[in-house]
Amino acid sequence: MQLLEQRILSDGEILPGGILKVDGFLNHQMDPVLLTAMAEEFHRLFADAGVNKILTIEASGIGPACFAGLAFGCPVLFAKKNRTRNLSGEFWTSTVWSFTHNVENTILVSKKYLGRGDRVLIIDDFLANGAALDGLITLCETAGAEVAGAGICIEKAFQPGGGRIRARGVRVESLARIKSMSDGGEIEFC
Amino acid sequence: MQLLEQRILSDGEILPGGILKVDGFLNHQMDPVLLTAMAEEFHRLFADAGVNKILTIEASGIGPACFAGLAFGCPVLFAKKNRTRNLSGEFWTSTVWSFTHNVENTILVSKKYLGRGDRVLIIDDFLANGAALDGLITLCETAGAEVAGAGICIEKAFQPGGGRIRARGVRVESLARIKSMSDGGEIEFC
Repeated sequence: MQLLEQRILSDGEILPGGILKVDGFLNHQMDPVLLTAMAEEFHRLFADAGVNKILTIEASGIGPACFAGLAFGCPVLFAKKNRTRNLSGEFWTSTVWSFTHNVENTILVSKKYLGRGDRVLIIDDFLANGAALDGLITLCETAGAEVAGAGICIEKAFQPGGGRIRARGVRVESLARIKSMSDGGEIEFC
Repeated sequence: MQLLEQRILSDGEILPGGILKVDGFLNHQMDPVLLTAMAEEFHRLFADAGVNKILTIEASGIGPACFAGLAFGCPVLFAKKNRTRNLSGEFWTSTVWSFTHNVENTILVSKKYLGRGDRVLIIDDFLANGAALDGLITLCETAGAEVAGAGICIEKAFQPGGGRIRARGVRVESLARIKSMSDGGEIEFC
């Protein structure tokens, strides 16, 4: 998606260690005009997928997911992160390893809001190692919900998550796919 | 706001200890139709307040804030919670006591996105003890930004936060103000 790629080039920042900061428009400060355009693109891509629910994970997935919910006209559910392992039976749970914080989080959604008959579009801001997306897909499977696909804002295509999750049989659509980033600040898109 | 009050009465749940659960439409699963109507009401209330930025706090404030950003046509910034006290100089910080988790969080926003010249509307899902709102207001003052007001989805008017923050000179508009809740499930609005 050209609009997003241009914005990454103009406002994104590359930090040492392959970190791309886009907190000026996507995951700290959010630009509603850009996020609306991105949501419309997700809707164009998944218009015929029978989506009845958007699922994401707190915190930075919530913004893109809300705009997607508006484009699809369906509820938006966000999984919560929790370090507690002992939860009552009212939640579907899964585990996600956080590479950012070096900690394993339990993610959870209420059984009231996800189950058999749901066709879910998972939305997230980044796809790199794919840990969060794996956890969300597993959570849907546990709940008996179908995964219509995953809509990702920015995919680091040089990291293994996208390949692994597509091999798992899940349709993944990323609005910007980064082929390579150099420490000098050069970004090449796929 | 009648639409929200009706939804609280039909889908809200009262748990022991004065807890109101609205996670079917506001802070776990979100209804984009309701949140759009609420954002338009915030815009009607603060249309002349010169707002150029929406500020909220992760995680459950992000949804209502995104829709407000769309209604106001301005960027949405969310404060992050952090238990680390030692942060580099690139953030404005403040502290917030969490009554839910009995822990003090440092909240932070990047200095790049908040400062002198900003006129901020703070949006949050709940106002009860007012700890989060106090922290966000203090953070704006530290940054040299003006607080145009606070737009709250649900205020527990029987708790002290709303009164204290209005006494602090901040305009607070709450779309639903709860006067009392009984353990039997009765809710009375102001």
